[in-house]
Amino acid sequence: MRTITADDVVDIADGAAILGTGGGGDPYIGRLMAQVALREHGPVELVSLPEVPDDAQVVTVAMMGAPTVMVEKLPSAEQVGLAASALTDYLGRPLTHIACAEAGGVNSLIPVAAAARLGLPLIDADGMGRAFPEIQMMMPTLYGITTTPLALIDDKGNRCVMDTVDNAWAERLARTSTIEMGCSAMLGSYAMSGTQARESLVPDTLSLCAELGALVRAARAAHTDPVAAVINRMSGRHLFTGKVVDVERRTVTGFARGVARLTGIGDDLGAELVVRFQNESLVAERGGVVIASVPDLICTVDHESGAAVTTEGLRFGQRLTVFSAPSDPRWHSEAGLALAGPRYFGYDVDPVRV
Amino acid sequence: MRTITADDVVDIADGAAILGTGGGGDPYIGRLMAQVALREHGPVELVSLPEVPDDAQVVTVAMMGAPTVMVEKLPSAEQVGLAASALTDYLGRPLTHIACAEAGGVNSLIPVAAAARLGLPLIDADGMGRAFPEIQMMMPTLYGITTTPLALIDDKGNRCVMDTVDNAWAERLARTSTIEMGCSAMLGSYAMSGTQARESLVPDTLSLCAELGALVRAARAAHTDPVAAVINRMSGRHLFTGKVVDVERRTVTGFARGVARLTGIGDDLGAELVVRFQNESLVAERGGVVIASVPDLICTVDHESGAAVTTEGLRFGQRLTVFSAPSDPRWHSEAGLALAGPRYFGYDVDPVRV
Repeated sequence: MRTITADDVVDIADGAAILGTGGGGDPYIGRLMAQVALREHGPVELVSLPEVPDDAQVVTVAMMGAPTVMVEKLPSAEQVGLAASALTDYLGRPLTHIACAEAGGVNSLIPVAAAARLGLPLIDADGMGRAFPEIQMMMPTLYGITTTPLALIDDKGNRCVMDTVDNAWAERLARTSTIEMGCSAMLGSYAMSGTQARESLVPDTLSLCAELGALVRAARAAHTDPVAAVINRMSGRHLFTGKVVDVERRTVTGFARGVARLTGIGDDLGAELVVRFQNESLVAERGGVVIASVPDLICTVDHESGAAVTTEGLRFGQRLTVFSAPSDPRWHSEAGLALAGPRYFGYDVDPVRV
Repeated sequence: MRTITADDVVDIADGAAILGTGGGGDPYIGRLMAQVALREHGPVELVSLPEVPDDAQVVTVAMMGAPTVMVEKLPSAEQVGLAASALTDYLGRPLTHIACAEAGGVNSLIPVAAAARLGLPLIDADGMGRAFPEIQMMMPTLYGITTTPLALIDDKGNRCVMDTVDNAWAERLARTSTIEMGCSAMLGSYAMSGTQARESLVPDTLSLCAELGALVRAARAAHTDPVAAVINRMSGRHLFTGKVVDVERRTVTGFARGVARLTGIGDDLGAELVVRFQNESLVAERGGVVIASVPDLICTVDHESGAAVTTEGLRFGQRLTVFSAPSDPRWHSEAGLALAGPRYFGYDVDPVRV
């Protein structure tokens, strides 16, 4: 894939929603936003990480906020490019490349829309290799790259540019502003050089999203098992297949936080799985034992169609397969676990590695 | 007064605390901050509004937050000038003059410290002619001058620059950031030309502060009544003299909100006065009837010494005189009342005009 056209975005959105581990936004919305921008501005050039020149000026873009709100309050077409350009105005240097902050149904597609609007190439990579709820949880943080200056733009036209003493403060201040802006805002952050992007981003994420989306689509057409195809491609591990019997969900401190309970069907009959989430699924417990955890991926998909189900899309009665998959190995470093391991999120367990 | 030296700031702080109507910060802290800066950097040139050239670049500076916190967490010397200079960096134009956003024990002196540090003249004026709790409540708002771009700097070194769609949004976003920064932050805002400053600021406030402070000092030395001298100079009206019998105070949504109850002494024996405040005193009720209200000033001073008592300084047993005084008449326009009249603050009464 050397360019992204309106035809490509369905697969990318569907695959990205799987890597989004419940967060990162609804793929239907991500797809619509990218298609509108691509039809208006033409295809986006996709460049692989090794192709990015040393002196490139890269900015990551994403939607920040509670997915529960993002599905009801879409960013305007104009807003999508503004966060990146507000940041470049502040930096006083021309922007050369857009990158994805994370993988997700909206957050892998917002950068496509931004790149189309700004006429810039998009890097086939992202900052997490998955989705995480907080903005300091980016691989570039592990390389000493600062979140700020960051730009936040809301749907009304308000904008903030922040410079913070560390990446955790960037999260704190950007989160409170996002909440006040109505729990959703466009974010431009992690301005970096090409050299920094090459070492710190997770490579080939958009290609992987497109491949996963295509796998699901092909399996459905061939009447084979899309879930098995996805788990296999991601070197994942089947955790549970069951029916959603309870979802507690509340939007607090700008996040969709909650717990989903599943009762087993098929081979898992009689068992129960509990998935705890903060935008993204963080831990899965079976019989009170944590069987999967961040930083590895915990993915929830429809057990027949393989379509990702986001945490805000969880509903009573849905039949889901839950599987885990390895994250970028750098997340299992000491610094990586301090940033996004289970203990950071308040679960006093060692990370369960796939 | 053509310059402000370390010797001048005691009177200015004491007078400003009276105009602060309970808010605007503790005069002791304001005095210390200004004295340190003046001793280090030398006197500050004070220019009257008519002297400000048309093409001047004026920025107002102030401390934003809950006074309850400001008295415990002082801004660093460095922080004081940073908000103004961060704003000028953003504007890309050199700053020529500093102005006070409001009158108050801290907020009339922070600009003195900022002007000393930056080596700039200070304008003998302010944006309110008193103190108000929210940043859109500035006379420049009535002239269509925008609060933003505004810069907020905290004690840790975090900074935000905001551009909002209107001045009410500036208040909302700056307030939430200030709360997250720890309920106190340095604010640079209302960047304006000299022409705009001349028409929109309230003239001669710093001179008035110095005069009020000197009046109180002279009356004490002469064993005459400092309270009567101040009320007379401000064309004010005595409302009540009594003893504080109850203070409810809580820091919510970044403000010190509460109610003080006074029981009368002397001529007011047997009566009760209730003062409701949000950083500043907003309404005074006697026998359930509002006898004074914003936008006019409600000042609380020690009944003997005439020293202003801020709302965070209210304590059981204090003997106070409460008086009202006229605000700048422009606050009584329809637009002025919409911005800072009693109904804006949730009191369904017509403003009581002195």
